[in-house]
Amino acid sequence: MADEPMSGTFRTALVRRGLLIPLGAEGVYGHGAAFEAVVDAVQNALTRTGSDQRATALRLPPVYPAADCHTTGYPEAFPHLGGVVSSFGRDADVRPPSDRAAAVPEDSRRVTPRSPALALVPAACHPAYAMHRDAEIGDGRVLDIRGQCFRREPSQDPFRMQAFRQREYVYLGDADGARAHRDRWVARSLEFLDRLGLAAAPAAAADPFFGRGGRLLAANQLAAGAKTEAVVALRLPDTTDEHATVALASCNYHGDHFGAAFGIKGPDGPVHTSCVGFGLERLALALLYFHGLEPARWPGGVRQVLGL
Amino acid sequence: MADEPMSGTFRTALVRRGLLIPLGAEGVYGHGAAFEAVVDAVQNALTRTGSDQRATALRLPPVYPAADCHTTGYPEAFPHLGGVVSSFGRDADVRPPSDRAAAVPEDSRRVTPRSPALALVPAACHPAYAMHRDAEIGDGRVLDIRGQCFRREPSQDPFRMQAFRQREYVYLGDADGARAHRDRWVARSLEFLDRLGLAAAPAAAADPFFGRGGRLLAANQLAAGAKTEAVVALRLPDTTDEHATVALASCNYHGDHFGAAFGIKGPDGPVHTSCVGFGLERLALALLYFHGLEPARWPGGVRQVLGL
Repeated sequence: MADEPMSGTFRTALVRRGLLIPLGAEGVYGHGAAFEAVVDAVQNALTRTGSDQRATALRLPPVYPAADCHTTGYPEAFPHLGGVVSSFGRDADVRPPSDRAAAVPEDSRRVTPRSPALALVPAACHPAYAMHRDAEIGDGRVLDIRGQCFRREPSQDPFRMQAFRQREYVYLGDADGARAHRDRWVARSLEFLDRLGLAAAPAAAADPFFGRGGRLLAANQLAAGAKTEAVVALRLPDTTDEHATVALASCNYHGDHFGAAFGIKGPDGPVHTSCVGFGLERLALALLYFHGLEPARWPGGVRQVLGL
Repeated sequence: MADEPMSGTFRTALVRRGLLIPLGAEGVYGHGAAFEAVVDAVQNALTRTGSDQRATALRLPPVYPAADCHTTGYPEAFPHLGGVVSSFGRDADVRPPSDRAAAVPEDSRRVTPRSPALALVPAACHPAYAMHRDAEIGDGRVLDIRGQCFRREPSQDPFRMQAFRQREYVYLGDADGARAHRDRWVARSLEFLDRLGLAAAPAAAADPFFGRGGRLLAANQLAAGAKTEAVVALRLPDTTDEHATVALASCNYHGDHFGAAFGIKGPDGPVHTSCVGFGLERLALALLYFHGLEPARWPGGVRQVLGL
């Protein structure tokens, strides 16, 4: 999706109505009650959509050990997107506390606690793989994950937030099961979006890998058909025939990438995994974009699916 | 609250039942579905408890501009607790991406986007003051805030998480209104906890300011009676007569600290502010601690207040 098309009338209207409240950094917003009501309705609709999955529900935090992030190679693949938690004073733009020099030793120790460095979670499912480190998984397992994510992608486009929530259904098991889960959710997410009046299409996609080496990784990912997104076309505000697209769901087959990295044992070697991730703010925004800024006036069928 | 008393049987039981799932860093947990059901019930009960406040509901993100954090003096007062978001490679324990040197210039630009440095939100209400920068507030305003917070306090004690959620009712207006809001919520939070079967007591408190200068700040805060916590006493697992206490709600009168910092104009000078903050994970844990690990078996009156 291009960065600029949504920066005009749609963003202005969202802000004017208090649906999004800019907080002084691009892609970081407060959410008004009406916006959150849509997000809650989308969560509930996704719960109903996945109710046959016998999934183990989890809520994961916005931070997790940076070492687990390294184990998957994320910092090398996405150095431009990731974030780690540092103390004040380690950033050049942050002054050290004025009384630190005068502090007694016991206080100094409190500034550098012996706990693993923390990374911000880049995709809701990531901490779940580390959580299964060295586990043995027999028949395949589905997780239903709610998480808060961070990606350093400052943008005026409300569809591209730096802090956002994902809902994911994640599979761990054998290769056939992982591929079947991915394929099931490609179909199911398109059908779900259709019922929401969002005309989505499947699109082969690649992750935004970094740098020259990243272009090769992306080409490999595309060639393997490992990532399929459900995308909708947005109308540009000032034209009638140009479109930008935005991905509302992403269905990914990871092979044994996570299983091998964390020693998660499946029936025949490391588990294979796959996931579908829904961007909750994006889904709410797409509904507001296509059906208007007043949910009370959305089509009856859409309101019914959302339980509104 | 002491750091260690809860590290034994209670934490073990929470983990064994999948209520909390350790993620490899102290104070960072995944939450099981049963735990989240309690948190959701607490949220709904707090909504009912504050329904007369005509509050503007907001959901705030886990990060906000670091400059806003500086404006309030937080990094100087709490350098040991705060966190800022850095890129991978700026921390000593994080290697730079292997192909960064070979990256083309356009990729390098993507690693250092021109957007404000971000801090992790230390208390749910903090971004709300910056949000009202230079605003004029006439009659007093109450905000109902849900937020995700971070404090660098690694601990085995489940009551002391590094990543946690708060619900706050925040007042902005004149000094009398701010004090009245604080006093109202001291009484109301004690009553709320009583209805939940949690025998809480009010306790004058001070924030955990850093260093030698911080001890003076804490003494001043105590002398001014600016902070009152609703605390419950926990039984230590291996003794019968010792107790640790944990704060479940914190009621704070800030004077014009935030109003002056952000130029928020009230009827006679900078607005005065006050807030009540509830720790959602702590409330859920206190219910599990005092009433047992099976919400279905909690006292009928408690279940009724929670809508369970």
